Amino acid sequence: MNSSIGIFDSGLGGLTVLKVLAQKFPHESFCYLGDIARLPYGNKSPETIRKYGLQILKFLKAQNVKVLIIACNSASTVFLEEREFEGIPLLNVIVPGSRAALVAAGMDKRIAVLGTSATIRSHAYATTLKALDSAVEVTETACPLFVPLVEEGVVEDPITELVALRYLQKIKQQKIKTVILGCTHYPVLRSDLRKVLGQDVQLVESGEVLSAELGQLFGNGGIEASSDGHGRQIRVCITDLTDHFERLATQLMDPEPIGRLEKVVL
Amino acid sequence: MNSSIGIFDSGLGGLTVLKVLAQKFPHESFCYLGDIARLPYGNKSPETIRKYGLQILKFLKAQNVKVLIIACNSASTVFLEEREFEGIPLLNVIVPGSRAALVAAGMDKRIAVLGTSATIRSHAYATTLKALDSAVEVTETACPLFVPLVEEGVVEDPITELVALRYLQKIKQQKIKTVILGCTHYPVLRSDLRKVLGQDVQLVESGEVLSAELGQLFGNGGIEASSDGHGRQIRVCITDLTDHFERLATQLMDPEPIGRLEKVVL
Repeated sequence: MNSSIGIFDSGLGGLTVLKVLAQKFPHESFCYLGDIARLPYGNKSPETIRKYGLQILKFLKAQNVKVLIIACNSASTVFLEEREFEGIPLLNVIVPGSRAALVAAGMDKRIAVLGTSATIRSHAYATTLKALDSAVEVTETACPLFVPLVEEGVVEDPITELVALRYLQKIKQQKIKTVILGCTHYPVLRSDLRKVLGQDVQLVESGEVLSAELGQLFGNGGIEASSDGHGRQIRVCITDLTDHFERLATQLMDPEPIGRLEKVVL
Repeated sequence: MNSSIGIFDSGLGGLTVLKVLAQKFPHESFCYLGDIARLPYGNKSPETIRKYGLQILKFLKAQNVKVLIIACNSASTVFLEEREFEGIPLLNVIVPGSRAALVAAGMDKRIAVLGTSATIRSHAYATTLKALDSAVEVTETACPLFVPLVEEGVVEDPITELVALRYLQKIKQQKIKTVILGCTHYPVLRSDLRKVLGQDVQLVESGEVLSAELGQLFGNGGIEASSDGHGRQIRVCITDLTDHFERLATQLMDPEPIGRLEKVVL
């Protein structure tokens, strides 16, 4: 099973996931698709997100993948129930993220979810969390300015702190200490968020969560790479290309090296 | 010539232009297309912007228009030289905007241009301004966070003021008093910009500029509406639809009423 692991995100945010997975699974090859030409997904309708998502899953399947991972939270909300795509195992971030948050919260049972407008509007995390534990108390907050701030590199910055203070006021007041980062861009804002919410806040990040999920899938048998990782490939494909994205990709994957971004047409 | 005037923008920002034109030309019908499913254009490559632009011009032509207006500055930069599309007069915002700025600046000859990354990277305004008057001094500044701030309604707000202070520092220090708002979203930030740059700053806005241009085109003959405006139509078509956009559209067109947004597939 030396075919690769397919990862899809609306843009480059999912590289924060690819980075963690590439470090945890050094024998595996990866094929990443960032739909930069049509990002952001966070304010699109479910119908449009699903249409784009299906195109991308088809593209990744054609690249000979053995697992498909939807790193994008907004896209995960519209593929929430599906466990495979045309016979290939399909992972999304919502279900494992919810499980991990419940473990982190323990007896406290109060969990905050931060996400794009589309993710929060879907209530996918709240629904999943409640289904897993009906006693859980969920606070959902849309943070639509976080993605542009990350994409513009406005990180560890007074502007971002002011925006975070605005969005996180209620979570801060209520001293909620388990927070799901429900968007692949948000781990970049880790230190801005800790500054506002306190150093003891537990941030549940998609990269860590998916890495546990993938480990479990491999544990169930037979699809882990048998090679020693020598010659493994990490392809990053995007649907549009500007200098800006080359820089952003390098920054998001740092310190992991990446090759040239490949521009593809879906 | 009772066919309508076609206007295209990457999203709803161009409604600031439609509003001005609908008020100035009360006899005319309009057909607006906002490519919301694929916005923002401001960080896409010229090839991608051109591809999308041609699809939209074709769509608008099929709606029986007599003039085509590219309200989107990022798209205008890739159609800068073209004066017609398949036989229909084509207006962009860059050339008339530059002319208006030169008139506003007068003897001062110092002009600042604010725009998206794509618009600024193209240097379309600087090139056009220099071609019209080689003595002009142009300061170009990309303000990529302004569009998301407008779309999230963060207007007349300390966050936006802090962002504006960051972007406009040089313009403020050099006391440049003629500023081209090179993006259809920016007129919404008029008061935040004046707060930072001083009440005496002259803001050159696409709506005003295109209205003068259209007046001139009508003056040249024969295509102005002959009706009294009774029953004129203002259609707003978009490529994706969420509640968020209904609200944003109403806010941008206020106090002009708009009908239901029409979702179209290109």
